[in-house]
Amino acid sequence: MFRGADGPLPGAVVDGELVLDLGGLAEHVEALLADPVALEAARRLAAGGAGARPLAEVELLAPVRPGRILCLGYNYRGHLPAGATERDPDPQYPDVFVKTPNVLRGPHDVVTLPPASDDVDYEGEIALVIGRRADAVSLDEAAAHIAGYTLFNDVSARDWQSRSSQWELGKCFDGFGPLGPWIVTADAVADPHDLTVEVEREGVVTVSQSTADLVFPMAFLVHYLSQVMVLEPGDVIATGSPQKLPEALAAHRPLADGDAVTIRVAGLGELTTRFAAPVPRNEGAAR
Amino acid sequence: MFRGADGPLPGAVVDGELVLDLGGLAEHVEALLADPVALEAARRLAAGGAGARPLAEVELLAPVRPGRILCLGYNYRGHLPAGATERDPDPQYPDVFVKTPNVLRGPHDVVTLPPASDDVDYEGEIALVIGRRADAVSLDEAAAHIAGYTLFNDVSARDWQSRSSQWELGKCFDGFGPLGPWIVTADAVADPHDLTVEVEREGVVTVSQSTADLVFPMAFLVHYLSQVMVLEPGDVIATGSPQKLPEALAAHRPLADGDAVTIRVAGLGELTTRFAAPVPRNEGAAR
Repeated sequence: MFRGADGPLPGAVVDGELVLDLGGLAEHVEALLADPVALEAARRLAAGGAGARPLAEVELLAPVRPGRILCLGYNYRGHLPAGATERDPDPQYPDVFVKTPNVLRGPHDVVTLPPASDDVDYEGEIALVIGRRADAVSLDEAAAHIAGYTLFNDVSARDWQSRSSQWELGKCFDGFGPLGPWIVTADAVADPHDLTVEVEREGVVTVSQSTADLVFPMAFLVHYLSQVMVLEPGDVIATGSPQKLPEALAAHRPLADGDAVTIRVAGLGELTTRFAAPVPRNEGAAR
Repeated sequence: MFRGADGPLPGAVVDGELVLDLGGLAEHVEALLADPVALEAARRLAAGGAGARPLAEVELLAPVRPGRILCLGYNYRGHLPAGATERDPDPQYPDVFVKTPNVLRGPHDVVTLPPASDDVDYEGEIALVIGRRADAVSLDEAAAHIAGYTLFNDVSARDWQSRSSQWELGKCFDGFGPLGPWIVTADAVADPHDLTVEVEREGVVTVSQSTADLVFPMAFLVHYLSQVMVLEPGDVIATGSPQKLPEALAAHRPLADGDAVTIRVAGLGELTTRFAAPVPRNEGAAR
């Protein structure tokens, strides 16, 4: 999606340099993903490229407005929970939590650090986007329901996350889910389990890990989650955060005013999020 | 909300016997709650009662379509987590989780037991509904943002809930959130902390506890959560499940085809949910 003169419009990014308005095909990218005819038309128009405008002149928005944002806890081998050792066996089941829709932000949005937290952290992830509706699909069928891939910053208030057994509140602050820059369709990704997720903070690479280390592969997540709920076009599954590099972990400090975090995956693009100082709200103090 | 000839309509229940169509004032109850003028007009029309039709002839739908359903874990003293004793001090912070929108059902809907679980349970709760937008509101201001109260069944697949640290998947199966029968506005509830939540299953009362036992009172929840996200009209906060009575706990068995569970609170009405056998889906087995 990008900002048009009269509101958000779906578009196609051509060669990483141009944006083609697809507003004539569908109102939203979710609708486009759900409609094979519109999607094929979009591919042909993008291949032609006629009428596209320079990407640099366009404000990209979050590429979809997901009905659900489902997130994986521990899902990269080596990203170990506190106290665990590398010899721990893989977990038997994925640990899944939900981010509420108020977290969603686009690639051009600045995220305001909330006054109620002083320990905000980033997590750079690959997110898969559902194309066709998935209702209890088998593992074999699951991959066909993935429309494509994008990047997601699972911003987390660690102080709130650790206050109680459930992490939700630390994960669901307004703006804690930048998504983008765009969706790369599944057919354009040779092997989603051979991608390197790199995260850079202030010029320092803090994360660099391959999706080959995923405990639960992309298609499995679709299969598994589709038994709980019917997954709809545009739903996002954030596939989990690779472990921070040991030096980065040692040097870690909470996000502060002016910080920027870039998530980068070759073939998927990069998503840079800037963080800004809290805007005073009515009341800061929690019980 | 109720089912009109051309789609869902907002309505007012008059004296528990009649339903007045409020479609002329707002499209949805969320919009009504957000608009003081429309809400006052609704009160006057309901007081007059002209043009109302018998409640028994109407299909009630979930009273709002919440943007968020935020739920409390342990929030009644005496409803103890496994292994805890009655002497445990109150938790310092609320334990909050999220139910995704696909759980929402109305008071007339039958909930299908999912094939992927064989341990589905009920939790009868009072839900508060946000009226005015709440952005980091103080504890003193918080109560004014509560539009009213309704009932909520926090249906839970215990097997899935206990598979991982986060409860989400056990909580988010399609249909696991019956809400209703209607919203009783806050001004009509003398003291929300002097209500008895009663749950009945197959003629047996399994829960009977007063909101006087709440660890975190209603207004505190609004205050606390509004620091994380701006609460919007129609958002629902399910205030937690009272403990099952010891005999009910001892006799507990998972919900089965044909079971019905009724949640009842004097002054708020009652919400009966029927459960039906799984409809076969494409694939049943999880990893």
